[in-house]
Amino acid sequence: MSTTIDQSAPAVYADVPVGIDATGERTEFDSMGTVDVPADRYWGAQTQRSLQHFSIGNDHMPIEVYRAYGIVKKAAALVNREAGRLPDWKAKVIVQAADETIAGKLDQEFPLYVWQTGSGTQSNMNINEVLSNRAIQLLGGTLGSQHPIGPNDDVNMAQSSNDSFPSAMHIAAITEIDERLLPRLRELHAEIDAKAKRWMGVVKIGRTHLEDAVPLTVGQEWSGYAAQLEGVIREVEHSREGLLQLALGGTAVGTGLNAPAGFSEKVAAKIAELTGKKYVTAANKFEAQGSLDAIVRAHAALRGVAVALMKIANDMRWLASGPRTGLAELVLPSNEPGSSIMPGKVNPTQCEAIVMISIQVLGDDSAVAFAGSQGNFELNAMRPIIINNFLHSARILGDGVEKFLTYSVKGTELNEKKIASYVGESLMLVTALSPVIGYQNAAHIAESALANDQTLREAALASGKVTAEQFDKIVVPATLVGNGVGGA
Amino acid sequence: MSTTIDQSAPAVYADVPVGIDATGERTEFDSMGTVDVPADRYWGAQTQRSLQHFSIGNDHMPIEVYRAYGIVKKAAALVNREAGRLPDWKAKVIVQAADETIAGKLDQEFPLYVWQTGSGTQSNMNINEVLSNRAIQLLGGTLGSQHPIGPNDDVNMAQSSNDSFPSAMHIAAITEIDERLLPRLRELHAEIDAKAKRWMGVVKIGRTHLEDAVPLTVGQEWSGYAAQLEGVIREVEHSREGLLQLALGGTAVGTGLNAPAGFSEKVAAKIAELTGKKYVTAANKFEAQGSLDAIVRAHAALRGVAVALMKIANDMRWLASGPRTGLAELVLPSNEPGSSIMPGKVNPTQCEAIVMISIQVLGDDSAVAFAGSQGNFELNAMRPIIINNFLHSARILGDGVEKFLTYSVKGTELNEKKIASYVGESLMLVTALSPVIGYQNAAHIAESALANDQTLREAALASGKVTAEQFDKIVVPATLVGNGVGGA
Amino acid sequence: MSTTIDQSAPAVYADVPVGIDATGERTEFDSMGTVDVPADRYWGAQTQRSLQHFSIGNDHMPIEVYRAYGIVKKAAALVNREAGRLPDWKAKVIVQAADETIAGKLDQEFPLYVWQTGSGTQSNMNINEVLSNRAIQLLGGTLGSQHPIGPNDDVNMAQSSNDSFPSAMHIAAITEIDERLLPRLRELHAEIDAKAKRWMGVVKIGRTHLEDAVPLTVGQEWSGYAAQLEGVIREVEHSREGLLQLALGGTAVGTGLNAPAGFSEKVAAKIAELTGKKYVTAANKFEAQGSLDAIVRAHAALRGVAVALMKIANDMRWLASGPRTGLAELVLPSNEPGSSIMPGKVNPTQCEAIVMISIQVLGDDSAVAFAGSQGNFELNAMRPIIINNFLHSARILGDGVEKFLTYSVKGTELNEKKIASYVGESLMLVTALSPVIGYQNAAHIAESALANDQTLREAALASGKVTAEQFDKIVVPATLVGNGVGGA
Amino acid sequence: MSTTIDQSAPAVYADVPVGIDATGERTEFDSMGTVDVPADRYWGAQTQRSLQHFSIGNDHMPIEVYRAYGIVKKAAALVNREAGRLPDWKAKVIVQAADETIAGKLDQEFPLYVWQTGSGTQSNMNINEVLSNRAIQLLGGTLGSQHPIGPNDDVNMAQSSNDSFPSAMHIAAITEIDERLLPRLRELHAEIDAKAKRWMGVVKIGRTHLEDAVPLTVGQEWSGYAAQLEGVIREVEHSREGLLQLALGGTAVGTGLNAPAGFSEKVAAKIAELTGKKYVTAANKFEAQGSLDAIVRAHAALRGVAVALMKIANDMRWLASGPRTGLAELVLPSNEPGSSIMPGKVNPTQCEAIVMISIQVLGDDSAVAFAGSQGNFELNAMRPIIINNFLHSARILGDGVEKFLTYSVKGTELNEKKIASYVGESLMLVTALSPVIGYQNAAHIAESALANDQTLREAALASGKVTAEQFDKIVVPATLVGNGVGGA
Repeated sequence: MSTTIDQSAPAVYADVPVGIDATGERTEFDSMGTVDVPADRYWGAQTQRSLQHFSIGNDHMPIEVYRAYGIVKKAAALVNREAGRLPDWKAKVIVQAADETIAGKLDQEFPLYVWQTGSGTQSNMNINEVLSNRAIQLLGGTLGSQHPIGPNDDVNMAQSSNDSFPSAMHIAAITEIDERLLPRLRELHAEIDAKAKRWMGVVKIGRTHLEDAVPLTVGQEWSGYAAQLEGVIREVEHSREGLLQLALGGTAVGTGLNAPAGFSEKVAAKIAELTGKKYVTAANKFEAQGSLDAIVRAHAALRGVAVALMKIANDMRWLASGPRTGLAELVLPSNEPGSSIMPGKVNPTQCEAIVMISIQVLGDDSAVAFAGSQGNFELNAMRPIIINNFLHSARILGDGVEKFLTYSVKGTELNEKKIASYVGESLMLVTALSPVIGYQNAAHIAESALANDQTLREAALASGKVTAEQFDKIVVPATLVGNGVGGA
Repeated sequence: MSTTIDQSAPAVYADVPVGIDATGERTEFDSMGTVDVPADRYWGAQTQRSLQHFSIGNDHMPIEVYRAYGIVKKAAALVNREAGRLPDWKAKVIVQAADETIAGKLDQEFPLYVWQTGSGTQSNMNINEVLSNRAIQLLGGTLGSQHPIGPNDDVNMAQSSNDSFPSAMHIAAITEIDERLLPRLRELHAEIDAKAKRWMGVVKIGRTHLEDAVPLTVGQEWSGYAAQLEGVIREVEHSREGLLQLALGGTAVGTGLNAPAGFSEKVAAKIAELTGKKYVTAANKFEAQGSLDAIVRAHAALRGVAVALMKIANDMRWLASGPRTGLAELVLPSNEPGSSIMPGKVNPTQCEAIVMISIQVLGDDSAVAFAGSQGNFELNAMRPIIINNFLHSARILGDGVEKFLTYSVKGTELNEKKIASYVGESLMLVTALSPVIGYQNAAHIAESALANDQTLREAALASGKVTAEQFDKIVVPATLVGNGVGGA
Repeated sequence: MSTTIDQSAPAVYADVPVGIDATGERTEFDSMGTVDVPADRYWGAQTQRSLQHFSIGNDHMPIEVYRAYGIVKKAAALVNREAGRLPDWKAKVIVQAADETIAGKLDQEFPLYVWQTGSGTQSNMNINEVLSNRAIQLLGGTLGSQHPIGPNDDVNMAQSSNDSFPSAMHIAAITEIDERLLPRLRELHAEIDAKAKRWMGVVKIGRTHLEDAVPLTVGQEWSGYAAQLEGVIREVEHSREGLLQLALGGTAVGTGLNAPAGFSEKVAAKIAELTGKKYVTAANKFEAQGSLDAIVRAHAALRGVAVALMKIANDMRWLASGPRTGLAELVLPSNEPGSSIMPGKVNPTQCEAIVMISIQVLGDDSAVAFAGSQGNFELNAMRPIIINNFLHSARILGDGVEKFLTYSVKGTELNEKKIASYVGESLMLVTALSPVIGYQNAAHIAESALANDQTLREAALASGKVTAEQFDKIVVPATLVGNGVGGA
Repeated sequence: MSTTIDQSAPAVYADVPVGIDATGERTEFDSMGTVDVPADRYWGAQTQRSLQHFSIGNDHMPIEVYRAYGIVKKAAALVNREAGRLPDWKAKVIVQAADETIAGKLDQEFPLYVWQTGSGTQSNMNINEVLSNRAIQLLGGTLGSQHPIGPNDDVNMAQSSNDSFPSAMHIAAITEIDERLLPRLRELHAEIDAKAKRWMGVVKIGRTHLEDAVPLTVGQEWSGYAAQLEGVIREVEHSREGLLQLALGGTAVGTGLNAPAGFSEKVAAKIAELTGKKYVTAANKFEAQGSLDAIVRAHAALRGVAVALMKIANDMRWLASGPRTGLAELVLPSNEPGSSIMPGKVNPTQCEAIVMISIQVLGDDSAVAFAGSQGNFELNAMRPIIINNFLHSARILGDGVEKFLTYSVKGTELNEKKIASYVGESLMLVTALSPVIGYQNAAHIAESALANDQTLREAALASGKVTAEQFDKIVVPATLVGNGVGGA
């Protein structure tokens, strides 16, 4: 082992492709001693220890975290180089290895599980080890020697898991939001908004408490869905702002020990430059490392998406229920046979998937909030559970929305015949008479119609409170739906 | 019963004080028939029916909802008068009764339970009936006659429970936020921030994973708490914006049926004028009535408060643990004997209360999100559970924070002797040597110190990797804590 | 203050009624000093301190806890007397005061809040103080003197809050289960079971995924509800077993310090005798005081009730939806006008209340589980939140079920005309042809019927796969519903 | 396509190994038409449709569900054969393919996602299609021809997804409980119980509210953990009973349509015979298909495990905190370097993993309960989310416990020096004097000791309330810990 850090030694760089041509095992070391690792893998002793100690279930630290970590390591190396702490030749190979991580070329090198140390240190060491060995390889060194590029001294320079892991969490979360969730939510919104506009003139019966109510238009109903989506999109965008703040520069406990002055701001600026996103350094590093409040808030925005989607998907499947003994106002696409025993059955399966996804996101959210409350002192050691749930929720929402849009919303059509047939049936159109004859009189007309199995018109005329002329002028569904989406 | 609505009849106004001088029962009616109510109460048939059908547990619809509803009813009456739909003499008495409600003079008239109809209609009818009878009383009429002021035709004019109840929810929620929660959070923040500044120079040992780490200052630690509070205050303020949007004007299903053109904007403007807060009409009434997304989001902000408070309260009670066999860095005020059996025991009871409150808010939040997802068609019929949980969470957070501040945070002092004694003990100060001698060498020094029960200095010198002079220059707690709160 | 405990002094007993004829304030003391309390109240210094420090929201420690505590205090006094530690004359007055507590005569003396010390010590001291002063009053002593009956030395003898509070929690929980929840669940089950039997022959269409399916009978459908209720009743009974174990005898940390040998078993036996319920001493006192696992499990049984009720209530309101544009198979009682604006509207309000109650119970359950996980060392200091949620959930379930039964389930009737009209319409009756003509052929018949707006019979015959004779023999709804509730 | 079901045709059986030697695509069909599938896969049209429509996230239906489904399909085939409905030659190949599924030989054939149809129909069709094609292959037929073994008519004979999927859920859940969770919990219990016995004589200080309390022994403390584990093991065993009930025989809606009389009981008996477990048919099929109450209850038992484990893991990590500035009573094994920046740091990582796992299980539980409440009519269409969460929770608990036991609990040692040093320091030993000198006097002694930085003995003697002889006789830690675990 090296006894002091050697920053001066030049080294020969050779751009060998990713991959280790070896079999069997290789001996790696850390401060506790040596550990054998598979010879064809880049990882080192601490990764191997974690694999042994934490092979729990099938939950692996999401690869998105490592790709985001690649950005962290690259930015740190560049700033360390600029600060004169890391020689150019070291920075170059660390950056190259980081770029390979970002590009997904090293995905197989990150095998660790979610259920590990609560700081994410093992995943940080995983990438430190992989980048170290890959850099050593590029410099023609001996894998496992930690020389001339050490996982702690070089790759992790000016960093701690305590500040770098939450930074990688934020970057991974924003990437998922930007690349998948928000675009798909916007697409869904656009389709629903288009349908709302297309169907703005189709009068239908309203339902409140599941019971017959006064009419509105199909377009008005769908405009409500569109407005819900606008609301949740805005909220995701808002919560995303909090994730732009990075803990990097706080190092071990927030004080910035072992990082050079100015590191915080420079490394955030570097990440902003590398990603094209407005990352900044967190104003208070003790909050940024002792709490996970920002990402807990961001998950609340995800659960807001779930809450809204569940309403929309439930409405759609109920309105499409039938085809013969349900509400049958909508016709959803028939994507697959619905039953293994009932021939010809078609079910609202995309809606069901959305409902289940929404429920899962609420469960994930519950875990995230709980975990968020469990920090102690200078560290909230619940990071792996939180980032795993965040990426899980964002992913199933994003993918689920894409399938829901493609295979259900887009192809949804109206059963206009059924919709029209309902419009006149609701006794609640009597509401329009209320301002003229009073609520109580109007109520008695509706009750009488129901009791005597009459139409509303029959009962109204029979009541003597209103003339046929009045009735026909006032109780006109198309005029009862008002004008637009803003109410009266 | 009146058979048509009589808007023209003048009436004699007499400003009799609140209160009905009667005993026994009075007969009231609604569209389903007559109901006897206590003769000394203003409420009518539908309130009485609800009392009979829904006396479930001890959860009453919060009085704050009715006071907010008073604002809704007042504003609606004023706008209806301006629209020429409600005669001045009617508007005057409705407004007076509404003012009495707002002022809390009619608190005893709102006895209903939370677990009632999901639209809140029974509470809307409760206030409609109370205002109707109080107005009738002011006009010298017969209580229960619904004449000349009817609960539906006059007090509820141009409204539905479906648009007025969520409006009252929003107003009640904002009132609670503005009058209790935010002021108290700001007070707590100010005190913690002041302590952070006062203690900024007191060096203490850091702890991560509950384990010894490198030093920071007490002020830095508390600055993290202050920053958490800043974050949650900002989020409550943000979520409050969504509550400024009112559903009024959507009436039964969002179309605005039976409300005059322009009602939405005028009534929101009137409420803004009456309250001095920036209320506006919701852009989409179908979203505003079919979903409760805005208040679900606002509750997420409350649970964010809980998540942050739990961290702070837990840190405080752990740091104050002891006095002889715990961490004992903090001394919390001794407010009361702590044990019925162990004499002289003092416990961190305010912290425990905050922890329990935080957990309850997370439980309430879980119920709110679930309920928020359960809307159908033109109505989310989960309103009572949501407003009850919202006001509950906001209230116990607000009150809890006030007690926590007054009886625990304010009087918290440092055990500086203990704090100082710990600083030198943590072997993690070896971290400062890492950039000089390398991580692995540093690790071996720390391990050796622990194994041999040495001080760090002893082990470091024994290792031969560092000289006494180097050690004494580098490993100086006061210089390891960096500068300020922003990291390096 | 007394300097030693005087057990020998005789005292004069006078059976004065409950109540203190005094105004203004009285000075009480505890180990921290003196405190003024209202002169007409029995409570002492520690209760008053708690009122000052913890007036948070409107959540008061449920009175059921104190009544249960009365049983604990009575049993302890009796066992202490039998052990020769408490003189007869002391035991007599403590028992009398405890009996008055149990009977509810002292309900006004227990004003404390839920959000207090996590051990419940303040509520324990509240009852200790009240019983002490009431006992002193019965012996002609001076209120507030703690002589000759002291709150700690006599009323709390051989107890700690740490063992007595969880014992009172268990007793209160079992009382609520036995006196309200289980009887009401059994009544609901009986009614639903009776309806299942009454309607066993009424053939209706089945629905899966909200979509038309094959027929069953209304009675079969309701038998499912009855079976769900049987399941949850059994589970409540099961979880109740765990609550029969009492922590009493563990005192401060579980070791039984200051309690005489044999106290644990004797006091549990005494409580069993007093209540007629099979209470026993907990086998391990460290588990009984360091965890709250038994009551967390019992709350899981309550949430199981909620999960089942939600299904039933949701089914009922959907099946009753309409009356003209919904499923309209059931007719629920019309209990009250449903809308403030739509005359004649009737809503499934009892079902909505049950749904909201169920959601609340799930929220409460989430808080209970979280709190249950937060114990440390010899105490889980989350007791107030857990017992408050438990009694809340049990109460609203019990009351809610009673209202739901009385005002909705009992009066529910079938719309047999509508039910019959649906039976023949579902194309899924084609399933019966499947074993004869194969699934694929059957599917094509159903698809063809839907596409061509034919009846199933028309499409089947048109397919040529089945003869009219075959069809009429096989596709007979009444024979497709099988026999009974156990499937084939 | 076949137009009628041909049960009579003999076929040639050839025991070809698992695997399809083909490339490109093969055309499969279902009632909606043809679909191309990868030629080397056994699955058919509906599996392929599901893959296209539901590739959402990374959550795949757990393989355990399919292996359990193999048992269902095998048992059904055997009973159908015995009932004379399925010819021997058909049953034989279906059974063989099912056995291959059970043995894991077909694991790669089940690629579907969790977020699919809520009934699990797509997974049922997946196994129907795989078994059909594998059986066809064994009979020398044409893959994709559905002849002579059809996925619906033969493999799914007498079944529906609606009864078979929940049966497979139960079988998979019980398998996980029996093979992993319970054995590992019992091992953990055994180790903790052994440690409790080993350390029963080691006196330590107790802590309540995190504050110093009276002593107990380390063994007593650990006996509490052991008792908690006994409790949760019993509860898992109890909840497992509910899972032994199978829905099979209810078919489409619970009536048993298309299944022969007696099928329910026979198929449950067959599964019991095949598995050696006491499976029985569910008494009420409408409950068994319309609800998922039994597995919701079983998940509550899992969350009970989590609640208990969290207490134990939290206690361990706090008691092991330090090594220099924490409680430091326990020494956990040093498994890996704890920090990327702080050399020599060791953290309680196994405890942290258990805490995170426990929180996740509570989140999963929340999703399961929510989903369990969302059934409608004859089906709860939330099955995939529930079985996925159940198997997830059980798995991470089982694996987590194994790692926790192996790498943390087993190697935990006492820091007896530290433990001993604390014992005499707690002022709460004054409690033992309370019965002699009274609570108030005892309290003043403790307060005086703390204020004057005295030992308890010094303060006690200074108070004049107790003699040195009395003190030394009474305040003996070793006698204050009582006797055993049952309290006094």
